[in-house]
Amino acid sequence: MRVVIPFDATDPKTRLGPTLSPAERDAFAHAMAREVIETVRAAGGDPHVVATEATALDAPSTVDDRPLNAVVDDAIAAETPVAVVMADLAIATPAAVEDLFETPGDVVLAPGRGGGTNAMVVRDPAFHVDYHGASIRDHRRVAREAGLALSEVDSFRLATDVDEPDDLVEVLLHGDGAPADWLREAGFQVQITDGRPTAGRA
Amino acid sequence: MRVVIPFDATDPKTRLGPTLSPAERDAFAHAMAREVIETVRAAGGDPHVVATEATALDAPSTVDDRPLNAVVDDAIAAETPVAVVMADLAIATPAAVEDLFETPGDVVLAPGRGGGTNAMVVRDPAFHVDYHGASIRDHRRVAREAGLALSEVDSFRLATDVDEPDDLVEVLLHGDGAPADWLREAGFQVQITDGRPTAGRA
Repeated sequence: MRVVIPFDATDPKTRLGPTLSPAERDAFAHAMAREVIETVRAAGGDPHVVATEATALDAPSTVDDRPLNAVVDDAIAAETPVAVVMADLAIATPAAVEDLFETPGDVVLAPGRGGGTNAMVVRDPAFHVDYHGASIRDHRRVAREAGLALSEVDSFRLATDVDEPDDLVEVLLHGDGAPADWLREAGFQVQITDGRPTAGRA
Repeated sequence: MRVVIPFDATDPKTRLGPTLSPAERDAFAHAMAREVIETVRAAGGDPHVVATEATALDAPSTVDDRPLNAVVDDAIAAETPVAVVMADLAIATPAAVEDLFETPGDVVLAPGRGGGTNAMVVRDPAFHVDYHGASIRDHRRVAREAGLALSEVDSFRLATDVDEPDDLVEVLLHGDGAPADWLREAGFQVQITDGRPTAGRA
């Protein structure tokens, strides 16, 4: 299956600004995207990166700096079935992505923490996306209004996107690929602060 | 399978203090525990509540106000296999809990967001728990050091415990039982703040 991986190559992961410098954010975002590309391949998918500008990522790529909704809606119109997997699912596993691919339904959604939609499979071109706000709720509504069969995948690893400093500890605790390696090489480790684990530099 | 559900009946959910009054925290914590009890039963488990003081929850119960580690270690010593499911997994589904029960391994862990261990099955009494700090990492280590076969369950619904105001939106977006009903009746709804969904009162 064609798997679209949208990637902000221009100013990635701005919400990690309190923790990472701009150059570090760029490097870490690329490490996450590389990991997602490998994971999608290991799950049997054909990754296709849609980046806001040219990148050196090892996958077929298109440059498209339009908003995410337009990019994904064009991908759905061009070909179904199609999957969309976000480039910051740093702890996604091949098993979780296979589960996404194999779950039946006209539309299969993998919710992200905080109301996002971190991955999906679309098998019917009557679906369209709306990534603004509580997108999981909007995507359920769009599927319902179009009379489409909707499924959801229950995966912590697909639900974990890495947007904020608090998310980094998940990568250290559960990741075993390039993003976890990058964080460790950058000096991050699990620290217990007020009884709660966080990712910090010594 | 016997399923131990530890429950703080004395001063529950203190970290929801910024959002809920003490009486509301008590009512909401009970709504979550009732939902977890029902979900465990629907998954074929035999729930047994261990509460810090007597409660009106509809399940066989023991009062035990010792620390969590002592309570769970005693349960493991008393009988294996045994499962432990936290009382605040407000969006857990029977399917996710069945998956936990059916996953093979001497120890099966369901990680929680932020390094916690939200549910487990223990089939070998050589295991013991350590819920302080990054417990998922400690539980992996305990299993490894005891030479036990370790598995993990990948579930967003088991990974979502409700500790902080930010967690409430998950209940509104993904829950369909007593906790979601309680929040709605208390006036909570999904609100979009700075582009991000949160649970707030109008």
